[in-house]
Amino acid sequence: MSAPLPENPRIAIVGSGALGCYYGARLAKAGNDVHFLVRSGRAAVMARGIRLKTPTGRIHVKKVAAYGTAGEIGPCDLIIVSVKATANDALAKILPPLMGANTLVLTLQNGLGVEEPVANVVGAAHVLGAICFVGCTRTAPGVVQCSFPGLVMIGEFGRPVQARTRELAQLFEKAGVKCEAHDNLEEMRWKKLVWNVPFNGLAIAAGGVTTDIIMADEGLRTLARRLMEEIVEAAAKLGHAIPRTFMDLQFERTAKLERYSPSSLIDYHEGREIELEEIWGEPVRRAKTVGVPVPRLEMLYWLIKRLLAARKAVKKAR
Amino acid sequence: MSAPLPENPRIAIVGSGALGCYYGARLAKAGNDVHFLVRSGRAAVMARGIRLKTPTGRIHVKKVAAYGTAGEIGPCDLIIVSVKATANDALAKILPPLMGANTLVLTLQNGLGVEEPVANVVGAAHVLGAICFVGCTRTAPGVVQCSFPGLVMIGEFGRPVQARTRELAQLFEKAGVKCEAHDNLEEMRWKKLVWNVPFNGLAIAAGGVTTDIIMADEGLRTLARRLMEEIVEAAAKLGHAIPRTFMDLQFERTAKLERYSPSSLIDYHEGREIELEEIWGEPVRRAKTVGVPVPRLEMLYWLIKRLLAARKAVKKAR
Repeated sequence: MSAPLPENPRIAIVGSGALGCYYGARLAKAGNDVHFLVRSGRAAVMARGIRLKTPTGRIHVKKVAAYGTAGEIGPCDLIIVSVKATANDALAKILPPLMGANTLVLTLQNGLGVEEPVANVVGAAHVLGAICFVGCTRTAPGVVQCSFPGLVMIGEFGRPVQARTRELAQLFEKAGVKCEAHDNLEEMRWKKLVWNVPFNGLAIAAGGVTTDIIMADEGLRTLARRLMEEIVEAAAKLGHAIPRTFMDLQFERTAKLERYSPSSLIDYHEGREIELEEIWGEPVRRAKTVGVPVPRLEMLYWLIKRLLAARKAVKKAR
Repeated sequence: MSAPLPENPRIAIVGSGALGCYYGARLAKAGNDVHFLVRSGRAAVMARGIRLKTPTGRIHVKKVAAYGTAGEIGPCDLIIVSVKATANDALAKILPPLMGANTLVLTLQNGLGVEEPVANVVGAAHVLGAICFVGCTRTAPGVVQCSFPGLVMIGEFGRPVQARTRELAQLFEKAGVKCEAHDNLEEMRWKKLVWNVPFNGLAIAAGGVTTDIIMADEGLRTLARRLMEEIVEAAAKLGHAIPRTFMDLQFERTAKLERYSPSSLIDYHEGREIELEEIWGEPVRRAKTVGVPVPRLEMLYWLIKRLLAARKAVKKAR
C-alpha cells in the first residue's frame, strides 16, 4: 500500500518549458504550494511571474517561487518532471534533494523508457508517468500560449492505479486540468506512439512536412499506416492489445488537424533536442526483444538519427 | 536470326548529355558516321565541336553533325538513346524517323523498365540495353569531363547475345570503350540496382550525404545492406541469382570511393530530373508481382518521391 498524497502537497516543478509552466501555474493558481526549478529565464519568471494564454482566458501567477537549484527547494510530496528526456542525465543530481519518504515523481516525458531513468534515481515505487494531450508553446520565459488544454492521462510505473494515483488526478482536476488515472501506463505510451511515430517521424524524414501533406501523399499516408501496424504488432506481442480501429481513429483525427506541425518537427526546425530514442529508438529495441520485425520503424529511426546528427554538425560549424 | 550490323553503320545519338557526348564523340573520333540530335546548346556544339577530357588525354571532335530534329537525320543502323528515362515520352516522336528495317536501338538508361518504352515505339526485336559504368560530367554544351572511363555492358532485350550484339560490342571496343556483351540484360540491371538503390537512394533520403557518411553511419550502413538484401531476394524470385558475395563486394568498392556523391544526389542538388521510377519504383512493383516484401525499398521510394515533389513545388514557386 502506498502512502496517500497529503492534503496540501508541496510540489516541485522540474523544468520550466511549456508543460512545466502550464501545469505548474495551473496548480499554483488553484492554491497549491508550488516550487519551480528554473534553469533559464529565472529572473524574468521572478519579476513577472508566469502568464498563460488559454482558449478560455488568461491566467497570471504573479508571485512564483522560482529556484536555481533543487537543494534550495528541498523535499516535496510531488515532483513533476517536465524537462525533456534528452536532459535525463541531469536527474541524478536534481531529484535526490527533492525526495522524501513518500514523494511521488510524475514524469511528463514523451515516448518509451522515460520512467526507467527516473526510477533508477529515486526507486520505482515513487514513479508515475503522464501522457499529456495538450497544445502548449512557450513564447518567452514564463509565457505560455495554450491552444488546446486537452487531457492528462496518468498511471503508476509498472503497477495498476493506487489510491494516491486517484488523489493526484483529483489534484489536477481541481486545478482545471482534465486528468484520468489509468491502470496500464505502458499501454498508454504505446498508444501514443501509434500517432507519434509516423506523424512526428515522417514530418521530419520526408523533408519537413505538415500533417496535411502526409495525409494527401498516397505513399506517405500508406507508410504512416504501415508504421502504425508495426507499432501495434510490437505492442500486441508485449501484451498491449491496441484495436485496429484505433489506427483508423488516428487518421480521422489527423484529417481534422489540417495543416498541423507535429511537435518534433517544430523542435527540429528550431534546433531543439528531439526525443529520438524515446519515440523511435526504444520501440525498435523493444520490438526486437519479442521478435517482431519493424523494418520501417527502424529505417525511420536511422534516417532521423542521421538527420539530427547532420543538424548538430552544422550547428557546431557555425 | 537478326541481321548483322553493317561495316560502316550510320549512327544516331539521341541526347547530348554527358553520356551521349562521351560515347558519340568516341565513336566519331574512331571514324564512324555519327549524327547527334542536340536539343539544347546546338549552336555551341556546331561551332566548337565536342571536347572530352579523359584520364588518358583530351579528345576533340571538331566537326560534329548536330541536328535539331530526328527527321533531319533520317534512318540509321544504330540509335543510341542517352536521354534520361524521365524524357521517354518524347521517344514516340524522335525514334520513328531514325528507324530502318534492321536498326538497333541501344538505350543507355539506368534502372528497370527502360527498354519497354523504347520497344513500345520501335518493336522489341530492335532493342538492346546498356549499363554504363562510367564517371562523366557535362560541364558545358559539348564539353565532358570523364573521370573514369570504365566499362559498358550490353545485352539484348529479352534475348541472349546475338551475332549483332558482339558486333556492336566490337564497335565500341574499336572506339576505345571497353564493352562486354552479356546474355542476361535484365539480370545485369538488377545487379546494378544492388548498388544504386541504397547508395543513390540514401544519399538523397538521409539529407544529402556522400557515400563516406553512409559507410560510417552504423544505421545507414546496415540499412544499405538490408536494401541490398531486398533487391537480391526480389531478383532471385524473378529468376536472377545474385550471389550474396556480390553485396560484400559493393561495400568493399564503396569504401574505396571515399567521399563520393552518387549521380542521383548530384542531380538532386542541381535540380535535374531523377530516375525515380526506374531505380526505385519499378523494382518495388516487380517485387510485388512475385510476392517478395520490400518494405524498406518501398519506404525509400515514397520518401524520395515526396522529396522530389517538394523540390518541384519550390522550383515552381520561384
